[in-house]
Amino acid sequence: MATICRPAIAVPENVITMDETLDMARRVYSGSPHLPLALRLITNTGVRKRHIVQPLERTLQHPGFETRNKIYEREAKRRVPPVVQQALANAELTARDVDAIIYVSCTGFMMPSMTAWLINSMGFRSDTRQIPIAQLGCAAGAAAINRAHDFCVAHPQANVLIVACEFCSLCYQPSDGDVGSLLSDGLFGDAVAATVVRGEGGTGVRLQRNAAYLIPDTEDWISYDVKDTGFHFRLDKRVPGTMEPLAPVLREISGQHGWDVQGLDFYIIHAGGPRILDDLCKYLGVAPEEFRFSRSTLTEYGNIASAVVLDSLARMFDENEVTDGARGMIAGFGPGITAEVSLGQWTASAAEFEFEEAFSEVVPA
Amino acid sequence: MATICRPAIAVPENVITMDETLDMARRVYSGSPHLPLALRLITNTGVRKRHIVQPLERTLQHPGFETRNKIYEREAKRRVPPVVQQALANAELTARDVDAIIYVSCTGFMMPSMTAWLINSMGFRSDTRQIPIAQLGCAAGAAAINRAHDFCVAHPQANVLIVACEFCSLCYQPSDGDVGSLLSDGLFGDAVAATVVRGEGGTGVRLQRNAAYLIPDTEDWISYDVKDTGFHFRLDKRVPGTMEPLAPVLREISGQHGWDVQGLDFYIIHAGGPRILDDLCKYLGVAPEEFRFSRSTLTEYGNIASAVVLDSLARMFDENEVTDGARGMIAGFGPGITAEVSLGQWTASAAEFEFEEAFSEVVPA
Repeated sequence: MATICRPAIAVPENVITMDETLDMARRVYSGSPHLPLALRLITNTGVRKRHIVQPLERTLQHPGFETRNKIYEREAKRRVPPVVQQALANAELTARDVDAIIYVSCTGFMMPSMTAWLINSMGFRSDTRQIPIAQLGCAAGAAAINRAHDFCVAHPQANVLIVACEFCSLCYQPSDGDVGSLLSDGLFGDAVAATVVRGEGGTGVRLQRNAAYLIPDTEDWISYDVKDTGFHFRLDKRVPGTMEPLAPVLREISGQHGWDVQGLDFYIIHAGGPRILDDLCKYLGVAPEEFRFSRSTLTEYGNIASAVVLDSLARMFDENEVTDGARGMIAGFGPGITAEVSLGQWTASAAEFEFEEAFSEVVPA
Repeated sequence: MATICRPAIAVPENVITMDETLDMARRVYSGSPHLPLALRLITNTGVRKRHIVQPLERTLQHPGFETRNKIYEREAKRRVPPVVQQALANAELTARDVDAIIYVSCTGFMMPSMTAWLINSMGFRSDTRQIPIAQLGCAAGAAAINRAHDFCVAHPQANVLIVACEFCSLCYQPSDGDVGSLLSDGLFGDAVAATVVRGEGGTGVRLQRNAAYLIPDTEDWISYDVKDTGFHFRLDKRVPGTMEPLAPVLREISGQHGWDVQGLDFYIIHAGGPRILDDLCKYLGVAPEEFRFSRSTLTEYGNIASAVVLDSLARMFDENEVTDGARGMIAGFGPGITAEVSLGQWTASAAEFEFEEAFSEVVPA
């Protein structure tokens, strides 16, 4: 009975507004025939602001892959621990209670992974399993939830810490001027998110079923070109249209669980971009308002890659209106094109239940 | 009841003998004060030959990280499919029977991972889970077995394909002359290995318990420096001595399962180098002969990273002397420094059992 608890999130202190992004595009693409397109794409993202690990001017420089990756390591070691501490506190656990760490990040590469450093520096047990995943991109947040769910089914009393650390700004490539880069330059943001999936207890979404789906023959629609200058993000223009083939898949997964996908109580959806959210609403037949958590993430932070689903989930906790037994879906999308889907029900912890029951006896409605 | 079936292995057609490695060192380190040390380190590996994806002269060139990674992709797409086909045949399954693919490789980086390409090109189902792991280095083969085990416990009828694709020769860095590089230049080889962990049925090692262990504060003992020229392997001189602290951990894991680590029937151990195997024998108190599968892998192929444990396991199948119920350990070691350990018992499939029983009735001993 794995329960995903309240995620903790941190975004960096350097803020770039949409106006600043538009100004940047006017400078970077000054005199380019692509400028009008860039401005239109950026405006259409609906991303009001993003947070990045370095000031904008430094972000726009490319000091080389080696230096970039060192910045990744430095910033990860600085920014991840407080988020992990908060996630543990949210789950009412300590580092010693954690049995596995799933660390997902596609914007820097370290071996050993950050999992080893976290174990050494934050008091996790030496027998903590390390599951670092670098190659699932934006789908990795939901994939981490699903693998944590599986781990807790296999080890029923286990607790799994999930960390999503994405510094997309460190993959900015000044030399890239293709349409996909124009769009991504205005879309992606940086964030660190963490949460715990508890095998027993906990308040949050009790995970019941998970599934994955690869849209056939779309491998090159979202990809990295790996170059001497690092990871170059490639986005095919067909990507925004992928919700048409994916919506029936989500409907079927939900149906296998006996749930009508149209009538779920909550939706935590990867905010890849505005069209992803709009289209998925349309094809699933749900009201735009149902995706409000994902829309807020996109508007306030941009596409923060694998951290999106955790941030959107945190917003649902913050709203504090979901009721016990509420049924919902978590869905991440990323390169492959891969969808990772989870179904679960909101569950208050036993302790809270008892308190509420006791309270209801004392003060009947 | 997850059972790891007979692995399939392929090594590339380009062979480099120890004599050729020594010749290479004499050329590459000609006039260097490190030459005598390099020759001694290479001789001490006991690696008689290795197989590499490109001819030696091309291996010694560095065409840049981008080109290297493209070679990785081309060679992986060429060499992985036949090994996967053989692994599926060994497990008496087809691609459609596979529920998850764990792809481990630390010698190239692709996003999407090879998992997406395999699904698209080899007839795996679109709902196959993808679990690519790039950051566990040599420990990843045993980690893959453990995660496959967990997956089959969580999804009891599932089958998990494991692929370990390691082209260590593509991480050769001509500019590196430190002692760790001298050693690794003579130690590592290339290979592709695959196997299936079947949730039900199958002949092989029935997996019963798995565990991991990180030796505290050894993160920088085995690591990659990520540079514009790609992954630079760093090996601390303390690494060969790590079996002294790890042996008691293996003993304890075995003890938790009620087994005396000294008296197991088989040992499939990561052949990191000759000292790793020698020391582990010594500290566990087992005869050198007990590690014969790992020794053969090391002698014939070199250290093939995450593929070692699968190749050593295949050699146990080939020897064909293990008997039903035999108890053993699989252990992988890698950066972290991380150990991934599995305990299990040899199990012939129900079908074979029935055949043997029927046969024994007809022809009593």
